[in-house]
Amino acid sequence: MKFGIIGTGAVGGYYGGLLCRQGFETHFLLHSDYEHVMKNGLFIESKDGDFALGNVNAYNSPEDMPRCDIVLVALKTTANDSLASILPHVAKDDSIVVVLQNGLGVEADVRKVLPGATILGGLCFLCSNKIGPGHIRHLDFGSVRLGEFRDDGTAAGITPALDKVSRAFSQAGIPVDVTENLGLARWQKLVWNMAFNGVSVVLSATTRELMDDASSLSLVRDIMREVVEGARACGYDPGDNFIETMLDVTGKMVAYSPSMKLDFEAGRPLETDKIYRAPIMAARAAGFNMLKSEVIARQLEFLDRRNTRNAF
Amino acid sequence: MKFGIIGTGAVGGYYGGLLCRQGFETHFLLHSDYEHVMKNGLFIESKDGDFALGNVNAYNSPEDMPRCDIVLVALKTTANDSLASILPHVAKDDSIVVVLQNGLGVEADVRKVLPGATILGGLCFLCSNKIGPGHIRHLDFGSVRLGEFRDDGTAAGITPALDKVSRAFSQAGIPVDVTENLGLARWQKLVWNMAFNGVSVVLSATTRELMDDASSLSLVRDIMREVVEGARACGYDPGDNFIETMLDVTGKMVAYSPSMKLDFEAGRPLETDKIYRAPIMAARAAGFNMLKSEVIARQLEFLDRRNTRNAF
Repeated sequence: MKFGIIGTGAVGGYYGGLLCRQGFETHFLLHSDYEHVMKNGLFIESKDGDFALGNVNAYNSPEDMPRCDIVLVALKTTANDSLASILPHVAKDDSIVVVLQNGLGVEADVRKVLPGATILGGLCFLCSNKIGPGHIRHLDFGSVRLGEFRDDGTAAGITPALDKVSRAFSQAGIPVDVTENLGLARWQKLVWNMAFNGVSVVLSATTRELMDDASSLSLVRDIMREVVEGARACGYDPGDNFIETMLDVTGKMVAYSPSMKLDFEAGRPLETDKIYRAPIMAARAAGFNMLKSEVIARQLEFLDRRNTRNAF
Repeated sequence: MKFGIIGTGAVGGYYGGLLCRQGFETHFLLHSDYEHVMKNGLFIESKDGDFALGNVNAYNSPEDMPRCDIVLVALKTTANDSLASILPHVAKDDSIVVVLQNGLGVEADVRKVLPGATILGGLCFLCSNKIGPGHIRHLDFGSVRLGEFRDDGTAAGITPALDKVSRAFSQAGIPVDVTENLGLARWQKLVWNMAFNGVSVVLSATTRELMDDASSLSLVRDIMREVVEGARACGYDPGDNFIETMLDVTGKMVAYSPSMKLDFEAGRPLETDKIYRAPIMAARAAGFNMLKSEVIARQLEFLDRRNTRNAF
């Protein structure tokens, strides 16, 4: 069973590293870190124990990669345009593609490129960063929720592909759970992401600061409520106590910078399209206007343009 | 005819300075600049010509001031709690109090202190800063729209008090126009202020930057539309082309930092209560929820607390 890791950063480097350590045949696509990883391998610094992978199958061109049975897509969604030039080289007819990305519409991006593929979505509850070439720092958490994608958004149930991938992840020590309803799981994750990712960028604040101030906490809770309403308009019910549970968990976390804040600080483009625009459009198509999220999205678009313009 | 100037900053120093220069008997209440102005007077640097007032009636305590016929309230609204200890010393039964402040509910703050007073609202279309002790820099514009306040928000018409104050202002060279409907005029000014003041703080951007980016321009326009809806819910109609006219004017202005942005950069508290909270509450009481403005208000409250905490 061959694994292909598309994007060897905080997410792909970490999960791919765990699979590789477990002995799975693993092929890593890299970009800027290619030379370094060819020479030095990968180093995973983890709260669960550091480990080095000295000799990894590294590629800087998808044409050179073998076709893989399971392909993990772990690019930033802002790079999804490149999937068209990558996936046809790495996937085969019976490959399973696992999309380890945030937001909505990410599996559909893969579907456009691979009309017949089996596609899973993977929601990563992971706190990790790439802190240098081939150097991943895993700070906390790490579980993955897997669900199979259906083009019409309905629940796929527990499928053979889900079984196969979740067994491999478990073997590699990745805490994994499976969901029958990927759409619901994606909206549930958006409840947190749409509240904390954008607001942490706009207000330049960690989760701790946002939880500790009455006004920002109200704002976060308001956005969460709006996302739950958006989810319901689209036919997914996150459940009654979902928001308070999320806030409870966040209140107990250490001060944390969401991925979008880290992207912003590093001058990388923001995943506003998948994390905000796609759900806002889906809800609107279902008759619900996410007005507060729209404010955050426009602020992010402005800040993103100014930030990335200044970076070059 | 005696004028009392409560707050000798960018607004009070400028308009009070023009009245004083014209020869009106003018009494200035100062705080931190008192010693300096006692010794050196006021200096008004203006695009229309600089002038110095060497010998001004300056006070650092309202108890020492004479009772005045016309009292200009030109404090930041964040200092309105102090009106209770100031106005009873400066006003008399037949005084006219002119409230030269932004936002909603500012005349009501004066009414609480002076139940029988004649109260005018004055909307300043003025770009000026206090750049040092007793030193005002007038950059652009300068007109004042005056209207008489009615406790129930209805149009007061053109009153004798309005006539009196507008004549004096005109004599002093202040471009002035009068409105029969102060409530409408305040909401019209809010269309601009609620869009540009808060967003310029949150995104740390001048009016020019906000006009030049498609996303921030959409955000500004959306908030303007929401304010117009809020005004209509409260019984005031800003008019059909009001928003596009405002945007047109703003697009032709030089890059400009709204007063709230200047306050923020100087570590001063923000006028969020009068410019956002009061209109949001008024609209809500009339059955309309200003959801987008609510997002901006909460962001401002968070930023304000962090900003002023850091300042001490």
